[in-house]
Amino acid sequence: MEKKASNITVQALQRMPYYLHCLEQARDNGIKTISATSIANELKLNDVLVRKDIAAVSSTQGKPKAGFPVDELILDIIDYMGYNDKKDAIVVGAGSLGRALLGNHEFEGYGLSLVAAFDIKPELIGKEINGIPVYHISELETFCSEHRVPIGIITTPPDVAQGIADTFCRVGIMAIWNFALTRLDVPEGVLVQNENLASSLAMLSHHITK
Amino acid sequence: MEKKASNITVQALQRMPYYLHCLEQARDNGIKTISATSIANELKLNDVLVRKDIAAVSSTQGKPKAGFPVDELILDIIDYMGYNDKKDAIVVGAGSLGRALLGNHEFEGYGLSLVAAFDIKPELIGKEINGIPVYHISELETFCSEHRVPIGIITTPPDVAQGIADTFCRVGIMAIWNFALTRLDVPEGVLVQNENLASSLAMLSHHITK
Repeated sequence: MEKKASNITVQALQRMPYYLHCLEQARDNGIKTISATSIANELKLNDVLVRKDIAAVSSTQGKPKAGFPVDELILDIIDYMGYNDKKDAIVVGAGSLGRALLGNHEFEGYGLSLVAAFDIKPELIGKEINGIPVYHISELETFCSEHRVPIGIITTPPDVAQGIADTFCRVGIMAIWNFALTRLDVPEGVLVQNENLASSLAMLSHHITK
Repeated sequence: MEKKASNITVQALQRMPYYLHCLEQARDNGIKTISATSIANELKLNDVLVRKDIAAVSSTQGKPKAGFPVDELILDIIDYMGYNDKKDAIVVGAGSLGRALLGNHEFEGYGLSLVAAFDIKPELIGKEINGIPVYHISELETFCSEHRVPIGIITTPPDVAQGIADTFCRVGIMAIWNFALTRLDVPEGVLVQNENLASSLAMLSHHITK
């Protein structure tokens, strides 16, 4: 299938998992075609926005009134987002958050395959979490070099995160999912996606106290 | 202490936990005063931005060259963000993500006190996770009404999330932290903070495949 042009916004990209989930639900309910308006209503989004997002990834044009074929649109999104190509990822930090990520089977549906975890706690090394082996952090560089892992996930305390990011970049990791409360310095071309629970919490807290 | 005006942006609010962490590290290293520029360098942020953010929450003016007294600025941020006022929160969904949240002691530093979890799995009900009791979901409404919980966290599958949000709103929950892959319909005045791991993953995945 021809790849559509990649002129899509960050926000549109972030909406894709929602569209996919909505379409899969529709399919499971036996729905064959769906309009952008129905998707917009379901997701409480503006329907012009949804129409534009869908047009950017759909391989077919929606039919007036009937809308888009659900099965095809699901495949288009999966294809566009690269969810079919399994991308290996490693997790550094096997604490409670690291474990939650290692235990999350949903990620596989989004093309992420967690292949190893790293930590420093002796009681974790050599064990498996959800079938995924835990290695000592000293093996990180060798492992990444040998396995050419493209995605690294950091769930460590903030003070060691930059050192891990440096190692990631040295061994060719292209995208870092950073759950540590610190900002990372990385070379151009490496994407850092910060996932900051404390920042979200700040929003909630402020809303309550204001 | 007089509360500063609340004309701060969402982005500035989200940066506060970073400032706080940076200042606490400085304090632990014996640093007494710090300039906005040092904070900016440490966090790889623009220093005009940092100066503005700090000015919005600081009770004292920074001194030329010396900067801000670290201890006072820490207290100002804690005070401004309401981290001293413990805010009760409940978690609905005690799966791997819910457990990770229940096991995260960091949240206490941000004023969040997790008081109960709810699930439907019989093997979890009546147990404790990290000292926090797990109740059956049927007890949610009574619990919230009795305890006047202001924050609700949803880590359930998406198809049940709206129902839980409806219950939350009915019992007076003011802020919802939503980890479910669905958009929630809530009355005005209720804040929904969406934490979507699949959307973040979409960004990483797209960066690798583009």
